[in-house]
Amino acid sequence: MFFEGSEKKFEIITNEALGPLRKRKQGFWKDVVKASGANILSGISNNYCDAYLLSESSLFVWDDRILMLTCGRTCLLEAILIFIEEFGTKNIDCLVFQRKNEYRAKEQRTSFLEDVERLKQKVSGTTMRFGKIHSHHNFLFHLEHAYVPVNGDTTTEMLMYDMSNEASKFLTQSENTTEETREFLRLQNVLPGFIIDDYCFQPYGYSLNAVKDDKYYTIHITPQESCPYISFETNLKINNDNANILTHFVGILKPASFDIMGFNSSVACFDFGKNYSRLAFFKDMLRIGYLVEFGYYFKDNLEIEKPFIY
Amino acid sequence: MFFEGSEKKFEIITNEALGPLRKRKQGFWKDVVKASGANILSGISNNYCDAYLLSESSLFVWDDRILMLTCGRTCLLEAILIFIEEFGTKNIDCLVFQRKNEYRAKEQRTSFLEDVERLKQKVSGTTMRFGKIHSHHNFLFHLEHAYVPVNGDTTTEMLMYDMSNEASKFLTQSENTTEETREFLRLQNVLPGFIIDDYCFQPYGYSLNAVKDDKYYTIHITPQESCPYISFETNLKINNDNANILTHFVGILKPASFDIMGFNSSVACFDFGKNYSRLAFFKDMLRIGYLVEFGYYFKDNLEIEKPFIY
Repeated sequence: MFFEGSEKKFEIITNEALGPLRKRKQGFWKDVVKASGANILSGISNNYCDAYLLSESSLFVWDDRILMLTCGRTCLLEAILIFIEEFGTKNIDCLVFQRKNEYRAKEQRTSFLEDVERLKQKVSGTTMRFGKIHSHHNFLFHLEHAYVPVNGDTTTEMLMYDMSNEASKFLTQSENTTEETREFLRLQNVLPGFIIDDYCFQPYGYSLNAVKDDKYYTIHITPQESCPYISFETNLKINNDNANILTHFVGILKPASFDIMGFNSSVACFDFGKNYSRLAFFKDMLRIGYLVEFGYYFKDNLEIEKPFIY
Repeated sequence: MFFEGSEKKFEIITNEALGPLRKRKQGFWKDVVKASGANILSGISNNYCDAYLLSESSLFVWDDRILMLTCGRTCLLEAILIFIEEFGTKNIDCLVFQRKNEYRAKEQRTSFLEDVERLKQKVSGTTMRFGKIHSHHNFLFHLEHAYVPVNGDTTTEMLMYDMSNEASKFLTQSENTTEETREFLRLQNVLPGFIIDDYCFQPYGYSLNAVKDDKYYTIHITPQESCPYISFETNLKINNDNANILTHFVGILKPASFDIMGFNSSVACFDFGKNYSRLAFFKDMLRIGYLVEFGYYFKDNLEIEKPFIY
């Protein structure tokens, strides 16, 4: 059963004139999520953030910003267009829209470049691609006008492909509970103290949102053999002192390959050990104040593999 | 200007009862090529083979076999279906249908799995994939029934991505002649004595067919920055004694990455020097008598790259 785990993602930062975003009625968020082709499954809240777990990924709402990720065959652009309409462009300080290369681009409703064409009818911006076009890559669109990120504004994404047989075996069991999955990922060891909302899909697949003050992390697992993919993302500042958060997942899941994308994060300096080679490294200081880094890692493999039989 | 260089490809081997394929009228080949969405540009012949240069790649016809490659948005399956109809399944000893992962799968008319679904309404066979689904890979379908290749039946494909700036600069000049392109590739040095038919597309792009007795080689170049791709394929036996044919192209084009696919060829043993790592190696003995090997190579790059701006 094929499922496209690769996410589309955007972050919108609004200005104060618009008022706190979390004051908007829940029906508003429900409609926006629905417009993108997903549904809200559940939610958690603290003093800073409302986090919604979706049928396809996640929506996080702070008073001044929205982060939304969707996977599968959703069209995330629809949500962006609603927000632009609702907030007005003058109240949007920053918009970053991203899309990973997919396993089966042909089955997507639109391509990223088609999405951007529609978006550019409303706002002007710059479209770029981090990573080789023939290999793993991440498209990024941002608004044209200048922006200065607030202190501490950082994001790190780790996108993992093709887990070890052991990890795949556990993750494709159909009766896993959320507790068992959290235990398998040993989340308490590296990310203690978060409020967690998670969900096991049938027959398999797992999504998690976690919040702690104004920090979040989110995990989405598509374990099937035809399209194995796991994403981890956080706004925790990742640096050499806590890089074990990333090496932790690599150690448990042993992916054949992974990408790391950082926004004002220091993803360049991690050493994933002698088992992984960094094949490509892209870096650029965006006009909107984010230093963006993209690294593509591949597990050194001397084994001879067999073809996959359909 | 985007153009999908990645090829679909098939080889059909017919049995003697069908008679020599080269006796069929040229109109027949013209119609088949047209059905796939391409056109015949020119042709060369010797005592063994008729080789047609197409608007999208190549068609080679021997008395007992057909090899056809098409790129762009062509639908090569249409040609296969005509041949099955025309020859009758009982006269087809072997059919191997392949497709590389594309740069922009979304813009293709069909996916490989959709093609195979249609093909399976006519013949039964096995579908497999060499290479990781999240990385470079090559799909392969072959007929179910047993086959024993004739002595010396071998194929080597080298599929190169993202050439050096120097090579790209030359290849994207709009006024290149066929002579200049052959000279740039220094073909005489490694592949002397072939009859050559080649064509420079406008504004750029290059295709070449070459025959010498029953041997062929073919080269197709899509040099543009948004989708850089060069393929080389031959039925010359490649082994350690003449591996310089492959290292020759790597040396001139310095691709960021390449795949090698071999059918009863010894692609496993080549050393492309310390600049290239083989990231994946797939191998399988097919029931139809071909030992198939697939290697994915990546240039070690310590440079920090800039994103591509659209």
